[in-house]
Amino acid sequence: MLKFVSLLLALSFCQGLQHNNIDDYVAAEPVFEASKYGSLWPLPQKVQISEVSFKLTSSSFRIVDAKASSAGPSCSLLQSAYRRYYEYMFGSAKKQWWSKNNRRSDPSDLSELQVWITSPDSECDGYPSVTSDESYELTVNQPVAVLKAPKVWGALHGLETFSQLVFEDEYGAKSVNAAIINDFPRFQHRGILLDSSRHFLPIKVILANLETMAMNKFNVFHWHIVDDQSFPYLSRTFPQLSEQGAYHPYTHVYTPADVKMVIEFARLRGIRVIPEFDTPGHTQSWGKGQKDLLTPCYSGSKPSGSFGPVNPILNTTYDFMAQFFTEISTVFPDGYVHLGGDEVDFTCWKSNPDIQKFMEQQHFGDDYRKLESFYIQKLLDIVTSTKKGYLIWQEVFDNGVKLKADTLIHVWKGNQEQYQNEMASVTASGYQTLLSTPWYLNRISYGQDWQGFYKADPQDFKGTDEQKKLVIGGEACLWGEYVDATNLTPRLWPRASAVAERLWSAKDVTDIGDAFNRLSLHRCRMVERGIPAEPLFSSYCPREYKGV
Amino acid sequence: MLKFVSLLLALSFCQGLQHNNIDDYVAAEPVFEASKYGSLWPLPQKVQISEVSFKLTSSSFRIVDAKASSAGPSCSLLQSAYRRYYEYMFGSAKKQWWSKNNRRSDPSDLSELQVWITSPDSECDGYPSVTSDESYELTVNQPVAVLKAPKVWGALHGLETFSQLVFEDEYGAKSVNAAIINDFPRFQHRGILLDSSRHFLPIKVILANLETMAMNKFNVFHWHIVDDQSFPYLSRTFPQLSEQGAYHPYTHVYTPADVKMVIEFARLRGIRVIPEFDTPGHTQSWGKGQKDLLTPCYSGSKPSGSFGPVNPILNTTYDFMAQFFTEISTVFPDGYVHLGGDEVDFTCWKSNPDIQKFMEQQHFGDDYRKLESFYIQKLLDIVTSTKKGYLIWQEVFDNGVKLKADTLIHVWKGNQEQYQNEMASVTASGYQTLLSTPWYLNRISYGQDWQGFYKADPQDFKGTDEQKKLVIGGEACLWGEYVDATNLTPRLWPRASAVAERLWSAKDVTDIGDAFNRLSLHRCRMVERGIPAEPLFSSYCPREYKGV
Repeated sequence: MLKFVSLLLALSFCQGLQHNNIDDYVAAEPVFEASKYGSLWPLPQKVQISEVSFKLTSSSFRIVDAKASSAGPSCSLLQSAYRRYYEYMFGSAKKQWWSKNNRRSDPSDLSELQVWITSPDSECDGYPSVTSDESYELTVNQPVAVLKAPKVWGALHGLETFSQLVFEDEYGAKSVNAAIINDFPRFQHRGILLDSSRHFLPIKVILANLETMAMNKFNVFHWHIVDDQSFPYLSRTFPQLSEQGAYHPYTHVYTPADVKMVIEFARLRGIRVIPEFDTPGHTQSWGKGQKDLLTPCYSGSKPSGSFGPVNPILNTTYDFMAQFFTEISTVFPDGYVHLGGDEVDFTCWKSNPDIQKFMEQQHFGDDYRKLESFYIQKLLDIVTSTKKGYLIWQEVFDNGVKLKADTLIHVWKGNQEQYQNEMASVTASGYQTLLSTPWYLNRISYGQDWQGFYKADPQDFKGTDEQKKLVIGGEACLWGEYVDATNLTPRLWPRASAVAERLWSAKDVTDIGDAFNRLSLHRCRMVERGIPAEPLFSSYCPREYKGV
Repeated sequence: MLKFVSLLLALSFCQGLQHNNIDDYVAAEPVFEASKYGSLWPLPQKVQISEVSFKLTSSSFRIVDAKASSAGPSCSLLQSAYRRYYEYMFGSAKKQWWSKNNRRSDPSDLSELQVWITSPDSECDGYPSVTSDESYELTVNQPVAVLKAPKVWGALHGLETFSQLVFEDEYGAKSVNAAIINDFPRFQHRGILLDSSRHFLPIKVILANLETMAMNKFNVFHWHIVDDQSFPYLSRTFPQLSEQGAYHPYTHVYTPADVKMVIEFARLRGIRVIPEFDTPGHTQSWGKGQKDLLTPCYSGSKPSGSFGPVNPILNTTYDFMAQFFTEISTVFPDGYVHLGGDEVDFTCWKSNPDIQKFMEQQHFGDDYRKLESFYIQKLLDIVTSTKKGYLIWQEVFDNGVKLKADTLIHVWKGNQEQYQNEMASVTASGYQTLLSTPWYLNRISYGQDWQGFYKADPQDFKGTDEQKKLVIGGEACLWGEYVDATNLTPRLWPRASAVAERLWSAKDVTDIGDAFNRLSLHRCRMVERGIPAEPLFSSYCPREYKGV
């Protein structure tokens, strides 16, 4: 079919005997064979690759705006992407730059990739959104390749795909096969959750992972930025929140400049940044800087000195939330904010006599879920007034809170049967939903657990076609109890890549053997690009990871 | 008891609510409290720390040879160690070097650490061995601290311990409490196994982990250098072994210079390098470069084209092994070599008519274990003739091979009951043994699995005191199927540190809470020294990992 000489050489998985101690694990050892799709990941919707190949030279190959493109040299998003992908394909330090003027151009070379934004508004200076058009068409043929996309977002994905088609032939010459690719995502929402509260994540780590997300066509960074353990978000309106609630008020905070940089770095890669400010539970760190925000717990008739969830019975709580989320709505440009709402523990509320009195007045009886709903309802109204949509964890739906029709319900609980029932129930109520349950990547186990992530499908539940359409995608979550800058990146990649393909590629892309073959090469490509993506199994990459 | 202001501040473990999804896991969340032993790891045998503290200045503090020491300035092992520990304590780029001449020396400062090698032969230029004296005594008092050790090996450990006593007070000033420490290891053999066959490990990774081993007082690097998957050892005698059997003959091999560097780097840290050349199984990669070494498997009456274990019936096999292990005996200075001997699959031997004939001639009947023993016996004789002792995996003992009295049996199989029975049985036969079964660190699971490693004790089996004395230690093993340069270091540390304390400290050091408190600080110290040691739980380090 096609020549992938270098990639073929790149990996050899030995069968051999299994060693020592894993007798009970390794049922069938994977054997690498070249996929007819080479190293493409996630697999595009339609791919035709011919046997004809062209060479590319670093000295003359160019990525250029097509003449008819609606995005020109002033579109720095694309110009940055051209440089990025040129460097990925050819390396930044160029060999043989000295001979570039002498070189006779070979007529069989591929001389350029033309990038053609076809719609009048390229969205170059905008932000990606849940409705962004991410489609593209890529035609590789001699003497030029053409990448057509209605918007810059599709062009970014197409550039990644083009770079994945380029390989080294047996002499190390960069080559690409003639190809026609027609591509678009199966789901609009393809996210990664990182948790910067249990452990602070240096900006450098976040940026490296945004870069890797782009290589995997993820388009949402769900930033679980604060939680019980620490409050690293430096709020302009309430600076005491991080002053008191961060692990350290200077070294372990995200300043407004940091946040802005993350958002712009993400935008340039077609990635949305959705912050999560989880309330009323998971807020211990908020209480350190904001007096009276949390509920005082009682031990008998006296305050115990400890605090529970946000205090839902004080007006000051809602004044605070209004100001706080007004700030959030201006700092984060995305149309959505994640409001959490999970795991509210009622013990403290129950112990507090003022809360008890309030429950009586409101005729809530003993049902503290009603109190929770009372709080959430008011919070949702506040956030709606800031012109934002919202995502919430499934409990808010489960507890019967009245929700706007465009609320996104984030499913994270239970076993397979339970989450499939939940997806059915949420969509039967007409809400859009996204799935995370099978993709808690913080849960680790011995062996190739990526296969489990790969097999889960967010539309596998009992429901009508209409219901299935309400599934907008999913997110891989890497909660932070056991993860920090020392181990985050290899723990996330390439395990999250399995989720990336599930959310991007067609539903029938399920061949685990072919996935293994492509993913093995994709992981070596990530390594070559400087990302410490861990191995799938015994193997090697031609250029191993150089850090440590 | 003592002041550990900076270390105290360094970590705050929040109780908070557990988040999302780990309800079933986190029974009791660990809460950090300062240990009275500060950040000492592994805990020395006898420790007295006073409340009195002294300051150390980077400009005037010195580590010097005591006048009466048998090791002077010509002992570069110690001089290198002084520089290393000075840099760990004060950083390499010095603040305030410009003021050093003006500074009045404070009489309450600790001005030097005197290192006193007390025995006539310091062993400075020798190699550590299983009988090396690793003991030391450390007295920290004003104006000088004294570190006494019979040999340089103890002095190295004492320097590490001294560096662990140094902390920053609330102003960031380096301080140390008066202390008396008397220390020696519980077990002589405290090892780490790394596997450079399933994945090639760049030299840089190996050196970084030797450095970290020294911080944890490990003293054996068990280098599982070749296996089925690849043969990266470049043999001078048989260069075709790596030429054909390595993943790549240039980029994925260990040259003689590499090996020499690893051995010297290890020696300077008191670490032995024991190579493992596992036969007759686990040898697929050997067969690529060495014709006729492996047994041809048969399918019916014809060779199938695949190969099994080393061919035990040919004289050429033993000629090869004699030459090969003669080379190994000169390249690796340690008194021991690990000969493997695990997991020999008899299927191929059974299929081969020549083997069948040989079995008849030798009157082995159908018992292929006898054939295995035949091979191993001859191999042991060969290795004995090179003046080396050997370690072997437990199967060789289990199969009844006749062994020299000083053979070390390496236990790795089974569940707790099984490995304890094995330890009992091996020691009842009078052999020395070391344990790895509970310390297969390649096996990962969610949560604080270090606690399980910490609780295992190699002397917990039914046996006499004499039998217990035959336990020389153990090894933490990190097999390489899922591990390479991208993820090895955070997967190994601080999980291996749990094993380090079990093998060094007294048997009754088992307080898991105190261990958590000290290990949390120890892991931040490794991070500060540039090692990406992963976190134990939600927390932070004052200076987070800077790589990615």
